[in-house]
Amino acid sequence: MKDKDILVVSAHAADYVWRSGGTIAKYIESGARVHVVVLSDGVRGESNDLWKQENATAEGVAAIRRNESRKAAEILGLKTLDFWGMQDYPLSFGQEEQARMVRLIRTLRPDVIITHDVNDILNMDHNRTHTFVWQCSIMANSAGVLTEGLSCTRQMKLFGFEPHQTEISGYRPEIFIDITSAYEKKARAMECFAAQKHLIEYYKQRASMRGNHARRLSGNSAILYAESFSRKYPVVAQEFV
Amino acid sequence: MKDKDILVVSAHAADYVWRSGGTIAKYIESGARVHVVVLSDGVRGESNDLWKQENATAEGVAAIRRNESRKAAEILGLKTLDFWGMQDYPLSFGQEEQARMVRLIRTLRPDVIITHDVNDILNMDHNRTHTFVWQCSIMANSAGVLTEGLSCTRQMKLFGFEPHQTEISGYRPEIFIDITSAYEKKARAMECFAAQKHLIEYYKQRASMRGNHARRLSGNSAILYAESFSRKYPVVAQEFV
Amino acid sequence: MKDKDILVVSAHAADYVWRSGGTIAKYIESGARVHVVVLSDGVRGESNDLWKQENATAEGVAAIRRNESRKAAEILGLKTLDFWGMQDYPLSFGQEEQARMVRLIRTLRPDVIITHDVNDILNMDHNRTHTFVWQCSIMANSAGVLTEGLSCTRQMKLFGFEPHQTEISGYRPEIFIDITSAYEKKARAMECFAAQKHLIEYYKQRASMRGNHARRLSGNSAILYAESFSRKYPVVAQEFV
Amino acid sequence: MKDKDILVVSAHAADYVWRSGGTIAKYIESGARVHVVVLSDGVRGESNDLWKQENATAEGVAAIRRNESRKAAEILGLKTLDFWGMQDYPLSFGQEEQARMVRLIRTLRPDVIITHDVNDILNMDHNRTHTFVWQCSIMANSAGVLTEGLSCTRQMKLFGFEPHQTEISGYRPEIFIDITSAYEKKARAMECFAAQKHLIEYYKQRASMRGNHARRLSGNSAILYAESFSRKYPVVAQEFV
Amino acid sequence: MKDKDILVVSAHAADYVWRSGGTIAKYIESGARVHVVVLSDGVRGESNDLWKQENATAEGVAAIRRNESRKAAEILGLKTLDFWGMQDYPLSFGQEEQARMVRLIRTLRPDVIITHDVNDILNMDHNRTHTFVWQCSIMANSAGVLTEGLSCTRQMKLFGFEPHQTEISGYRPEIFIDITSAYEKKARAMECFAAQKHLIEYYKQRASMRGNHARRLSGNSAILYAESFSRKYPVVAQEFV
Amino acid sequence: MKDKDILVVSAHAADYVWRSGGTIAKYIESGARVHVVVLSDGVRGESNDLWKQENATAEGVAAIRRNESRKAAEILGLKTLDFWGMQDYPLSFGQEEQARMVRLIRTLRPDVIITHDVNDILNMDHNRTHTFVWQCSIMANSAGVLTEGLSCTRQMKLFGFEPHQTEISGYRPEIFIDITSAYEKKARAMECFAAQKHLIEYYKQRASMRGNHARRLSGNSAILYAESFSRKYPVVAQEFV
Repeated sequence: MKDKDILVVSAHAADYVWRSGGTIAKYIESGARVHVVVLSDGVRGESNDLWKQENATAEGVAAIRRNESRKAAEILGLKTLDFWGMQDYPLSFGQEEQARMVRLIRTLRPDVIITHDVNDILNMDHNRTHTFVWQCSIMANSAGVLTEGLSCTRQMKLFGFEPHQTEISGYRPEIFIDITSAYEKKARAMECFAAQKHLIEYYKQRASMRGNHARRLSGNSAILYAESFSRKYPVVAQEFV
Repeated sequence: MKDKDILVVSAHAADYVWRSGGTIAKYIESGARVHVVVLSDGVRGESNDLWKQENATAEGVAAIRRNESRKAAEILGLKTLDFWGMQDYPLSFGQEEQARMVRLIRTLRPDVIITHDVNDILNMDHNRTHTFVWQCSIMANSAGVLTEGLSCTRQMKLFGFEPHQTEISGYRPEIFIDITSAYEKKARAMECFAAQKHLIEYYKQRASMRGNHARRLSGNSAILYAESFSRKYPVVAQEFV
Repeated sequence: MKDKDILVVSAHAADYVWRSGGTIAKYIESGARVHVVVLSDGVRGESNDLWKQENATAEGVAAIRRNESRKAAEILGLKTLDFWGMQDYPLSFGQEEQARMVRLIRTLRPDVIITHDVNDILNMDHNRTHTFVWQCSIMANSAGVLTEGLSCTRQMKLFGFEPHQTEISGYRPEIFIDITSAYEKKARAMECFAAQKHLIEYYKQRASMRGNHARRLSGNSAILYAESFSRKYPVVAQEFV
Repeated sequence: MKDKDILVVSAHAADYVWRSGGTIAKYIESGARVHVVVLSDGVRGESNDLWKQENATAEGVAAIRRNESRKAAEILGLKTLDFWGMQDYPLSFGQEEQARMVRLIRTLRPDVIITHDVNDILNMDHNRTHTFVWQCSIMANSAGVLTEGLSCTRQMKLFGFEPHQTEISGYRPEIFIDITSAYEKKARAMECFAAQKHLIEYYKQRASMRGNHARRLSGNSAILYAESFSRKYPVVAQEFV
Repeated sequence: MKDKDILVVSAHAADYVWRSGGTIAKYIESGARVHVVVLSDGVRGESNDLWKQENATAEGVAAIRRNESRKAAEILGLKTLDFWGMQDYPLSFGQEEQARMVRLIRTLRPDVIITHDVNDILNMDHNRTHTFVWQCSIMANSAGVLTEGLSCTRQMKLFGFEPHQTEISGYRPEIFIDITSAYEKKARAMECFAAQKHLIEYYKQRASMRGNHARRLSGNSAILYAESFSRKYPVVAQEFV
Repeated sequence: MKDKDILVVSAHAADYVWRSGGTIAKYIESGARVHVVVLSDGVRGESNDLWKQENATAEGVAAIRRNESRKAAEILGLKTLDFWGMQDYPLSFGQEEQARMVRLIRTLRPDVIITHDVNDILNMDHNRTHTFVWQCSIMANSAGVLTEGLSCTRQMKLFGFEPHQTEISGYRPEIFIDITSAYEKKARAMECFAAQKHLIEYYKQRASMRGNHARRLSGNSAILYAESFSRKYPVVAQEFV
């Protein structure tokens, strides 16, 4: 993983932690460069608990979410977080965001992009983010689009986060990443989102469930925790993986 | 690939060559052990052209098919071929074949099994072979089944051949293996099946088409030829592949 | 059904009658509150027959459609109809419609929302309405979105109308509502749309066909007529239903 | 649930506990009659851990499994267990088993049948059991089949267990049963299967995960634990559920 | 249609009438040769009403069904009916039936085969018949299988009947045949099955519904009645159809 | 095919040639009227090779693409090409394009429309074009939409091009058109796109592969080359095709 570049695009402030925190921490430990974009602060879409506080305001909620997200990122080993500050519920993408993402992909030239999967039956922002990132990745590969001195990329690998309720969203895990060595970091990072206790427990159990699946499918009994992802395109390889 | 063990199960005498000949040759070159089972000689299911010869008999057709298959295997680098001599069209699997396959898997302990994909809309033997191999692989993993001194295996990776007409069979390529270095061997091996000229050309073009797909998806312009396979279970890995 | 609240969102002036008229009538009879939104008058999308009249104008067609729809609603027992007067073919939803629907859901707090199913291969307005209503239902559940003194709802049940040609639209009936007791009202309500004779007969036969299906699946021979709906989310229950 | 009759068909000795133990306990508490058929003792398909003991024999393993299953059943409140003693891995159904199941359905006349879902990608016995039970339920409804004085039934509701790895088996939860009140019994019943520690933990977490899903979908915050099931046929109802 | 040969394979005594009676009558009128195989008399699977008569016996029921079927066939214009007299519920196909069907296909050399579609969620005999006919059609095309002086066929077109409840069986209509000119014959033929009043009405309405669909999709307002079928393989044509 | 009218809508300058060039040439030879709309010049989405030339500009690339496309069209026998000059990657459709397409369909009144299939996993412009054309075809059929003296059409047949990588885009061929007689023209037309050598070879092989499929499915050994298409709606016919 050393010298690999990974781009993670998260619709809201906490998504990347619940769904890929272990994988991020593991990549960073191994010397990879991981760049996380947080499109919105999740003020409308994932802050129900914060709005229960008296005198809650959009600005106040946003500040809390960003702060939590920064702490979590630090635990995972991320040096920076790229907050785009978009309004959520619904996220709306225009030409400006498109150009910004194409330029970012052309600059980072990631081997791997991780974002939301194509369908989340309980969250339209996740679906819109998938479509946005997919389209920008195609445009980044195509000469003639917004070149401005940045050369064109080649097709990168595109992975999808698990949605919250997988089966009814049509999610299918296509790769399990063993996060056993990074699990403690993920657990601590999740605990930064103090107002969402039930999700912390939920995603700890999920890491354990995916660890069970990965052990059964690989026969590797050392795997205790895992994260799963969908894969947009087939694997191309020199031998079976 | 060195020291890997691969089991290939082919319904008829030529299936493994058309659909995985390049991958087999490449594995053997690298020092892997590849074991090919040919369930039937394909007398009924893939010998239309041979039956056009005057005085054709089942025995004669079988002998020709086996002979062609042996020559092809030699070109691919296989030392032996394991002919089971079952009747085809339709292949029928009973307890005896089941026990034989479970024992074989327990003896070889392959990392990878390759066989037909779950559905071929033009060939019921391919479908039946898939179900048979899948069930035997599960049983081989399970203590209590036919142990006889052979210890139980763990879940192996299970890949599926392309059917002849892919889209109408619901086939989805999930991994492309770069066979550029082994392509010449595959081409020569296919030419052993002299009576099936149209298929030789067909599978040469297919290797080229899959090479095009693999190049596009990976950005690796050195890939000229590829074979694609379905994958029964998700990948379990330490990093993204 | 007493004291239940139901919101029905209809793309055009007659959709709610053809597809859920029996269910609406039955709910009203039992004391439920049913609120029907008619997004457009269906001037462009369902008035082919009216445009054949000489000197037809958009205003004239709209007036006829609204009048027919009001008569049908009265027969079904509805006190009011909520006409939004949008242009159809295609229906286009902006921030204004979104805010209006979120506020409406927050005000009505329905147990059940019924609208078009996710796909109608012959009518893009139906598909767009589904997406619109689904997204607004999610936003209505989310604190931080357009609160304005209206408190947030919880996830409601979301059901989908049958499209006209079901199988090619991928429609799957997930619940049959017995409308035997309300059938006469539905039949009379449909007859208000005088220019669409063929549809009146079509949906009478459909009620009979769905009654046959419901009888066969339940063993309840008292069911003569039924309406079927898709269901966006799984059932949550205290026992099997 | 009082006076309801439920038939549960379990491929192996523990399946019904992991997958429906909470629902069974809850039904029994409420006064329903629950009849559980255990087709095989699971000697080959779910006893890997027991075979690790020295001098393990098929008879010994079977005795242990039955004993564990009986204890679990008692905790759930079942008076009896109906062991059929078939050989597993693979389960093979002939005319005798078919006649026995049709007669059982005709005798019990259950409102609900619960068995394995249509596809488990890691367990062919589960798939075969589904097909067997489904076919027998159809035959039980059909006059002319094996009547022998037992009158024909009508179509019953048919629900499917969750397979172990749901998404890759194509499983879709269609109903969540709230098992909060019965959860303690389920937990204790699972602990009877001492050799399968990892599964006990796995299915405790699953009950919690399904509880989370059910809360989110219903807005009912009292649901802590749930079990999910697929549904073979649509719901037929007098109002929306 | 003149000089065309059609083979219809019906699981039970009345299936071919409900599902393809109009198409059969129309083909015969135009001078085609239609051969109908009735695999079973439907004693167990479609005679619930007859078993309600006192002293009903399997032989008696079979005689009634055959007699009704013969009358219906005569009205449709069929000269003969090919009763195979198999037991139904479940239909079980062995080598003998396989050889018989392969020989029949080799003898008739039909352009078109019509039988049940691949899945009927309420009738396992329909599913088994589909698999049986499909496999036999493949074998009939393959030299080496049971030749006995009959030469090998080429791939024929394979169409599937509508199941009773289409959407939940995954049925998708791929071709509508206009049966307006033959509808009266179909209606009269259906009336031969006196004990199944509800089905007569059901399939009359269905012909009308499919006529509505066919009109809408083709713009041909002369179509009043239609039958729909699935298609196993793509169309091959000289121009768009 | 004589006197038929066909409308082809191509997202970029070369799409219609790779994917339907043979069918177009064949229709024109037979006396049909074929109208091709080229929405964009493909400056951004299919001109990677041209951008490698020093001093490449958008205008220059556009001019080259149009010129190549005109030459190809001439070889296929087209008298004119209808260039809309939209920007690609991404194509964005507004009310103006919608009105233009509806008017065009009302003017041409085509029997058949060919455009991109519903999903291309590597090209969002193809997907957007499909949705655009489909919606406009529905609106063209609907009185009240933009009539302006042009009368309403009836539902036309809608066919979809093959995407580049078919299986991973979910493409399913539903009709094969025999292009043997027109293949030479298609080959020469493709060679006009000099900078895309690899695609020329790719689509020659594809024509050969589809010819193989069409031969196998029809038994017509005279078919050497074919093009395949998806079909949006079922066939309506007087007999089986």
